[in-house]
Amino acid sequence: MNKVTIDDIAKVAGVSKSTVSRVLHGKVAVHPDKKNAVLTATRRLGFKPNIVAQSLASGRSMTIGVLTQNMGSPFYDAIAQGVIAGLASSNYSPIFADGQWQIPKELSALQSLVGRRVDGLVLIGGGISSQQIDDTCDGLPIVIVARTFAESHYRCISMDNIAGGYAATRHLLDRGHRKIAIVRGLPTHADAIERYQGYVRALEELGMVPDPRLVVESDFSPESGITAVNELVKRGERFSAIFAANDLTAFGARLALDQHRLRVPDDVSLIGFDDQLESAYITPPLTTYRQPAREMGQYAADAILKLLQGEEFSSLQVHGELVIRHSVRDLSTASV
Amino acid sequence: MNKVTIDDIAKVAGVSKSTVSRVLHGKVAVHPDKKNAVLTATRRLGFKPNIVAQSLASGRSMTIGVLTQNMGSPFYDAIAQGVIAGLASSNYSPIFADGQWQIPKELSALQSLVGRRVDGLVLIGGGISSQQIDDTCDGLPIVIVARTFAESHYRCISMDNIAGGYAATRHLLDRGHRKIAIVRGLPTHADAIERYQGYVRALEELGMVPDPRLVVESDFSPESGITAVNELVKRGERFSAIFAANDLTAFGARLALDQHRLRVPDDVSLIGFDDQLESAYITPPLTTYRQPAREMGQYAADAILKLLQGEEFSSLQVHGELVIRHSVRDLSTASV
Repeated sequence: MNKVTIDDIAKVAGVSKSTVSRVLHGKVAVHPDKKNAVLTATRRLGFKPNIVAQSLASGRSMTIGVLTQNMGSPFYDAIAQGVIAGLASSNYSPIFADGQWQIPKELSALQSLVGRRVDGLVLIGGGISSQQIDDTCDGLPIVIVARTFAESHYRCISMDNIAGGYAATRHLLDRGHRKIAIVRGLPTHADAIERYQGYVRALEELGMVPDPRLVVESDFSPESGITAVNELVKRGERFSAIFAANDLTAFGARLALDQHRLRVPDDVSLIGFDDQLESAYITPPLTTYRQPAREMGQYAADAILKLLQGEEFSSLQVHGELVIRHSVRDLSTASV
Repeated sequence: MNKVTIDDIAKVAGVSKSTVSRVLHGKVAVHPDKKNAVLTATRRLGFKPNIVAQSLASGRSMTIGVLTQNMGSPFYDAIAQGVIAGLASSNYSPIFADGQWQIPKELSALQSLVGRRVDGLVLIGGGISSQQIDDTCDGLPIVIVARTFAESHYRCISMDNIAGGYAATRHLLDRGHRKIAIVRGLPTHADAIERYQGYVRALEELGMVPDPRLVVESDFSPESGITAVNELVKRGERFSAIFAANDLTAFGARLALDQHRLRVPDDVSLIGFDDQLESAYITPPLTTYRQPAREMGQYAADAILKLLQGEEFSSLQVHGELVIRHSVRDLSTASV
């Protein structure tokens, strides 16, 4: 048995006993310096708090269940990384289960998290219904990221995809583009639907209507960006710009344009959505609408920590921003 | 209190009681159909196994601690995704803590995992010493990914970076390149050192010696690839090819070459290391040495599950492979 006491640690770390308790139990935020002093002292003295035993005593497991949808998508991966980073300065640890974008698997992953007596849940994306969430998670604090529900009782961290689709399209219109193709993503995916709504709104503001021959679908993968451009070229309809559902799709589209000997941006302008790390380094660097994915994960971590401390937290719609690089040509000033 | 028994679940699911126990305790693999039947029955009957309480009774927490180094690097992220995927079919859940490539944080993250009574540990990358690992993790099964130790008592899933560096360089030599620059990564990073050793070995086989004017460092980021190419161009030494420390560095290098009006591969050939998703879709698609990152994570999950079942598992050095795309010009047959 470990003979080291909290009093010993407090003396070595030069902090109060209550600070030691707060660090070890993670109940409220502690100044990083003090936290480090406590952790160093616990290490030096060989004190090993048994968090599982503590959790039974306190009814808390000091874990946050995180439900991911493991697609290897940079956007969703960045959200998960943000949750890890956001919890790193607390004493809560994230525990992950993966739904693989399949509702039965998602439900079973959620049940496994709840069965582990997590103190709260962060759900990233996914497709299970609010009824299924309610039935499974009775009463646990829940924060939902990158998804919204019509019902208001969930706290959601989301981005305004309509505004994003509008801003991307408007950027092209302002630079003189009128034949704007859209690779719109999965027709069943809320984000894709909303970005398309933004596209339509921007066109309609100028009295234009979307041309169905310039609308193609994709599944957010680079491969589907290639297929989409091949389809657009095959249709024979002229276009001076493409708005891609996300950056991965834009990468594929850009490669397919190259294969058709269409230069970006000289012949065709290209705009993406996400601003993943690589987008600043392709040639030409991609103009895109930035989703603050990592920050969304960090907000979700902040939110769940607030809820666990009994503070309130309202749903938050974060704002993206247009990142202008070199893949869009300005036709309004260009000499033809 | 929950009155539903394992017997009830067995009857509803149409499986034996021992199968129910195996699913709920995750001791050995269970056929997915049976597992689903059990999980469906537990759901329908409202049976909620309390894994925390079970873990105290059984001395097992059914969790695997995963120590990550959160750089947002596609390589390390893919390993973590592989661990999640590899554990998804078991009843163990991964719990994450992040060391941020800083030894004090890494140590404290490891202590927090051990304090949660994880059943085993997967350490991805990182820099703490084997002594620190031994002191912290006394006796727990450990699998280390993307890192090797001279000591033999750890099970490591690693890749032969010397062979990788050799294969990439040899590919350039075989295509007639003799002035091969290398952007070699961090001089303190084992992977970078080993890839450089492979580069040297390939040159020496042909009686060549590395030219220090063609060797530049990077920190594996795309930005450092830009800086590296700017430095090479500034030095004024001719080169017909660049071997980049990883794909992100190659992306930056490719962009910088473009800014210097050097075409890839017409003027300068380029080869990367990793084969991250985006590499197949940049222009031109990148020839690179593929590291099976996700598979390495899955192997680590398999390994820790084996160790937990009392089976043996030896260290495993996985093999990468050259993925030939369009960023390397064949000078041996080209008419100049």
